[in-house]
Amino acid sequence: MSEPFSFRLIATDGAARTGAMTTAHGVVHTPAFMPVGTQASIKGVHHDDVRASGAEILLGNTYHLMLRPSAERVAALGGLHAFMRWPHPILTDSGGFQVMSLSPLRKISEDGVTFRSHIDGATVELTPERAVQVQLLLGSDIAMQLDECVQLPAERADIERATHLSLRWAERCKRVFENAPPGRALFGIVQGGDDPALRAESAGALVDIGFPGYAIGGLAVGETQEVKLGIVSETVPALPADRPRYLMGVGTPADLLEALARGVDMFDCVMPTRNGRHGLAFTRFGPINIKNAHHADDPRPLDPQSRCPAARDFSRAYLHHLFRSGEALGGTLLSIVNLYYYQDLMAGTRAAIAAGRFADFAGETKEQWIAKRDLGG
Amino acid sequence: MSEPFSFRLIATDGAARTGAMTTAHGVVHTPAFMPVGTQASIKGVHHDDVRASGAEILLGNTYHLMLRPSAERVAALGGLHAFMRWPHPILTDSGGFQVMSLSPLRKISEDGVTFRSHIDGATVELTPERAVQVQLLLGSDIAMQLDECVQLPAERADIERATHLSLRWAERCKRVFENAPPGRALFGIVQGGDDPALRAESAGALVDIGFPGYAIGGLAVGETQEVKLGIVSETVPALPADRPRYLMGVGTPADLLEALARGVDMFDCVMPTRNGRHGLAFTRFGPINIKNAHHADDPRPLDPQSRCPAARDFSRAYLHHLFRSGEALGGTLLSIVNLYYYQDLMAGTRAAIAAGRFADFAGETKEQWIAKRDLGG
Repeated sequence: MSEPFSFRLIATDGAARTGAMTTAHGVVHTPAFMPVGTQASIKGVHHDDVRASGAEILLGNTYHLMLRPSAERVAALGGLHAFMRWPHPILTDSGGFQVMSLSPLRKISEDGVTFRSHIDGATVELTPERAVQVQLLLGSDIAMQLDECVQLPAERADIERATHLSLRWAERCKRVFENAPPGRALFGIVQGGDDPALRAESAGALVDIGFPGYAIGGLAVGETQEVKLGIVSETVPALPADRPRYLMGVGTPADLLEALARGVDMFDCVMPTRNGRHGLAFTRFGPINIKNAHHADDPRPLDPQSRCPAARDFSRAYLHHLFRSGEALGGTLLSIVNLYYYQDLMAGTRAAIAAGRFADFAGETKEQWIAKRDLGG
Repeated sequence: MSEPFSFRLIATDGAARTGAMTTAHGVVHTPAFMPVGTQASIKGVHHDDVRASGAEILLGNTYHLMLRPSAERVAALGGLHAFMRWPHPILTDSGGFQVMSLSPLRKISEDGVTFRSHIDGATVELTPERAVQVQLLLGSDIAMQLDECVQLPAERADIERATHLSLRWAERCKRVFENAPPGRALFGIVQGGDDPALRAESAGALVDIGFPGYAIGGLAVGETQEVKLGIVSETVPALPADRPRYLMGVGTPADLLEALARGVDMFDCVMPTRNGRHGLAFTRFGPINIKNAHHADDPRPLDPQSRCPAARDFSRAYLHHLFRSGEALGGTLLSIVNLYYYQDLMAGTRAAIAAGRFADFAGETKEQWIAKRDLGG
């Protein structure tokens, strides 16, 4: 449990890279996609299915867990790994993003952020020190610094203020994290909105502070894909090659391929499970909206060649029926299908990079989405 | 697939009995509990978990399936077994019970029942002939006659009229079922409300018509447990010993033990899954309401000795958290726990009857519910 955190680059292919991250709870092969276990549960999906999909690391939401069941309670129950029975690596976010998006009446000061709980209205304070303490109580393998994430579009002055505040919070987080048990890692988060100069400043300052990994935050908050990828393209080169790079909250399979080509190593997103619950399946043939009427009589599975039993074993007609009937099993099965798809996309990427053919892999993957559309959606 | 339907008695112990029912899709060991797959899905539970719980036969609801996705569509997709990917035995009810309980504006005549679909308001006619046809299209191993089920308490005249109508419908169902493919069975349903004389008349008349199995219907519709068990006690001796006896819609584990002692062989009930979704776990220690606050810090599993992984692997604190947080996984896990519990109760019963110690088994089971209550709920 006290193996030091480390990241080893295995191969690069253009800007794309594959590697292995060693954590206290096991090795994570990168590029890695982290399913989101907001409230210590991947919505509607049993942990065994999450694991079987190929997930090596989960994301837990500090904001949710600190409010319910509370970090202290999780710690008393043995930490998040034991509590939710996921003995593999876990990354927790800092809570900052959800404070901004979920809680009413938040107030940001130099010290931290004060907000009302969306559950019971209680006033809660989240400082950089408390964000680290909560994540240490949860016992995650990778903790994230507290940052202020600005919704885009925004005024440059607002982005600048939040970026500088996030940098000062990064230092405070690092200072208090020095007391963390061995083997745990704290990542810094590059902010700067859609402003390349602020992004460069943020990345440079974080590298000066020094972290074992770096995230690109404040994206997937309303900007276009072009802006998002532009920021990724400009930020990645400012980060050290020997540290993992984590693009927070991204994204569609197409987003992932683009970000992978730009050298990103880690992702998290609710999309596989949220879209699955809403009837959208990600497949080799592109997305399939199973609720569409023309699936009602279709005996074909989503993908007979899938590694995922749910994609192979059930007919589109049956999955369609489950959604039309409001049966929760439909959302569960499509969430599983999507989790497998995302993990297989990562596994395919890792193999392609190791073989020096990532561009071909990405091209073939995208072609298949288009070419087989008539076979799919 | 064309093995004729048969029932073989293996052992009796007092009135209690154990046997084996051979159907076109496999053997069902009795006493058997049938989980309810209302809309071709055991709510919230993956088929693999249903099977792993020990279930050998499912119940499908004709009313729901005929309205959506429709019996013709299921037939075109290969029948209910293929459609829902459950290659094991399936029993379908006749739809009569749901017509009475779910559809507005129903009208009963000699011919059958006309009702408005609760889904789209369409007018639908269900005659004894159509009820059989629908079940043949679904392809269930065991079909049920159409009957009229009267909510209790009711006037004797109403019960009598419904009982006699159900008997005439039984004859019509049997007549049209003669064209069924080999290997399929049609059960008659004893009606008669809470009136012992009508029950005796109904049972006798059905036996005269002759069915490979008999159900006791029209219970679990508002009567007391005493009335229910009284009717079971009086009806069972009127049924032939060499045919399976199915008590419809029953019940709690305590109900099951009482009915087993009276010679019932088959049960169905939504209780394991419905109660599971509402936070109630059936365990060796009796029912546990996992939503109660005192579970919030309890690291113990529901039952470390359970055969069910969900009962062994997750802490009560975690299950409590899932319910408090509105995470669907909580309902799924408790549904699985309950499905295992019901199946284990049946397996224990079968073994006890074979060993000639059913009364001891039932007594010990009930004692443990009470004695370990402090350890449990």
